[in-house]
Amino acid sequence: MEVANILHMTEGIGDSSYAKNSLFQQKVILATKSITCEAISALYHSLSTWETIRIAELGCSSGPNTYLPVLQLIHTIREKCTENGQKLPEFHVFFNDLPGNDFNTIFRLLTTFYEDLKKQNMRSEDGLFDPPNCFVAAVAGSFYTRLFPSKKLHFVHSSYSLHWLSQVPDGIENNKGTIYASSTSPSSVLKAYSKQYKRDFATFLKYRSEELVKGGRMVLAMPGKENEHHLSNVCRFMLEPLAIALKDLVTEGSIEEEKMDSFNVPTYSPSPAEIQYVVEKEGSFTIDLLRTLEHQMDSSCEGYNEAQSVRAFAQPLLVSHFGDDNKLMDVVFNKCREIYANTMAKEKNIFTNVIVSLIKS
Amino acid sequence: MEVANILHMTEGIGDSSYAKNSLFQQKVILATKSITCEAISALYHSLSTWETIRIAELGCSSGPNTYLPVLQLIHTIREKCTENGQKLPEFHVFFNDLPGNDFNTIFRLLTTFYEDLKKQNMRSEDGLFDPPNCFVAAVAGSFYTRLFPSKKLHFVHSSYSLHWLSQVPDGIENNKGTIYASSTSPSSVLKAYSKQYKRDFATFLKYRSEELVKGGRMVLAMPGKENEHHLSNVCRFMLEPLAIALKDLVTEGSIEEEKMDSFNVPTYSPSPAEIQYVVEKEGSFTIDLLRTLEHQMDSSCEGYNEAQSVRAFAQPLLVSHFGDDNKLMDVVFNKCREIYANTMAKEKNIFTNVIVSLIKS
Repeated sequence: MEVANILHMTEGIGDSSYAKNSLFQQKVILATKSITCEAISALYHSLSTWETIRIAELGCSSGPNTYLPVLQLIHTIREKCTENGQKLPEFHVFFNDLPGNDFNTIFRLLTTFYEDLKKQNMRSEDGLFDPPNCFVAAVAGSFYTRLFPSKKLHFVHSSYSLHWLSQVPDGIENNKGTIYASSTSPSSVLKAYSKQYKRDFATFLKYRSEELVKGGRMVLAMPGKENEHHLSNVCRFMLEPLAIALKDLVTEGSIEEEKMDSFNVPTYSPSPAEIQYVVEKEGSFTIDLLRTLEHQMDSSCEGYNEAQSVRAFAQPLLVSHFGDDNKLMDVVFNKCREIYANTMAKEKNIFTNVIVSLIKS
Repeated sequence: MEVANILHMTEGIGDSSYAKNSLFQQKVILATKSITCEAISALYHSLSTWETIRIAELGCSSGPNTYLPVLQLIHTIREKCTENGQKLPEFHVFFNDLPGNDFNTIFRLLTTFYEDLKKQNMRSEDGLFDPPNCFVAAVAGSFYTRLFPSKKLHFVHSSYSLHWLSQVPDGIENNKGTIYASSTSPSSVLKAYSKQYKRDFATFLKYRSEELVKGGRMVLAMPGKENEHHLSNVCRFMLEPLAIALKDLVTEGSIEEEKMDSFNVPTYSPSPAEIQYVVEKEGSFTIDLLRTLEHQMDSSCEGYNEAQSVRAFAQPLLVSHFGDDNKLMDVVFNKCREIYANTMAKEKNIFTNVIVSLIKS
């Protein structure tokens, strides 16, 4: 499976679109706001002059969350400039995702983004600044490749994207009856997932180090786990109902057992120790901050929202593996909804996320 | 009518899409190739160092033509570098069009673009260069606004886009029985179109002058006319059949006369003198070259291709004015097809285009 060609959040703004089903991702962006803003403040103080600040939002998807981190960053810079009586720089902002992402929707939300920027400005105390000169561009491509010219970016942000691997790990044919690195997976499967993550994350760091200016910053947030011996509670919450639904369909004879066994989701949630290991080994960045954050998932008793959230990312993967069968997809996600409603939504679901703030050496 | 929100070439790659109906635009790009390549060669020689060359393709639309000029530009720079034994710079290329443009299709054609770049490389004589590091981004917005940070662009190219005005000119309520600046329009209408063009083109020059580096270049090609006393043969060819079709529908009672009379296409084809006037008055650029080029339109006897070409740009405008009525649209463009087949395709259709090469002072 060529992940870069298949993976995308469901496009548009319909009921099963990512745009309508990304509330949890928004919660993470808001929770990590202070860390992101501290990083850009530190960057602001470390650079002597900057006429144009170049910011990249990697894995931006398409929806109301796309513009949120950038609005926060510009707001922070504006405050710093006001404090220091400096002219606001220009911003060149790049929104990146895989080529299958719905960039048309991003661009159709641009008007809202510019209105939000204007509102920020009106709320600023001195009222002296014009609305910032912020120029937006979109970049299609995997962040496991080079995306930008050398040494031009100042700030990279990514939230809830780096848990997507560049490929399903090799050698996990024995991951039967499940679809991810789960509690029932053989240890060789868990190791293969961890190995793939480490390789991908090292590649990511290498390419970003070529693109960032010296002293440039990155803040990356992703679903994670406390340590290597734990399993990710986010992965379990998002994928276990899907695994159960698919197993049900095998039992019912709607899909072949072999077909289900060969389906694996290319996602992995790392521990802080794994991130630290890769950063230090790769060597281009120093760690400014690395920690886990816990969020409680607000669950609806009907399970509808949860099932839709899973559908927004999983449907393109399922379609690629099981074929483009709308009826089958409806059955799968109806089952997911029931599982959420009957079991998982009744539990207290605490999600662990990892956030790391890095400085380009 | 808010042109920036409505105007776009028909999306996708279907039969009535712009991607499938832009062969003539391709012919223009190929015919102006030598001028474009001379301009970037001159730019190459005028700059002492450049690590990253920033190129903007304005009004790029979405289809096979989108990448063509940029491929030509990179090829030229590659040849110059080979001649001089220099390392190939990095390229940062920005594809711009209005927010309604189909950017998803552009990004899905990226793989082909990169393959074409690789082929270029394999054909180069010394074989020393790696495939160029070319990074692509998309920018949504009207080129009658600022699109890029200050003083960063090296080269701007635009082909068959600058004849689109920012709005239908004011004060042309008396342009009855036609839909553009035609031979039957009152002289006040022709003046209003010319005035709107001059205002828009001056705005375009002002914003681009803020975005280009000193010595930066622009090559702009558009449908035009020999002098102010002529009418544009491209406009006539593209719009007269549509005007006749709409008048037929008025006669048949399918659309109201008033509705047709209030429909005007926001397009104008300038003469070299009009372009020279605006460039000199605006003052940011010097003219390196300004000339007309003539192309013969290859016509099919069935008129199908011509009608589809018109449909690719006119349908969104018609839908916005007459409502989203698929049946009506089919009737309109079937009539267009007949008109092309019976009359215009039998004439020898010579199209006048204007090309201008500008240097930022």
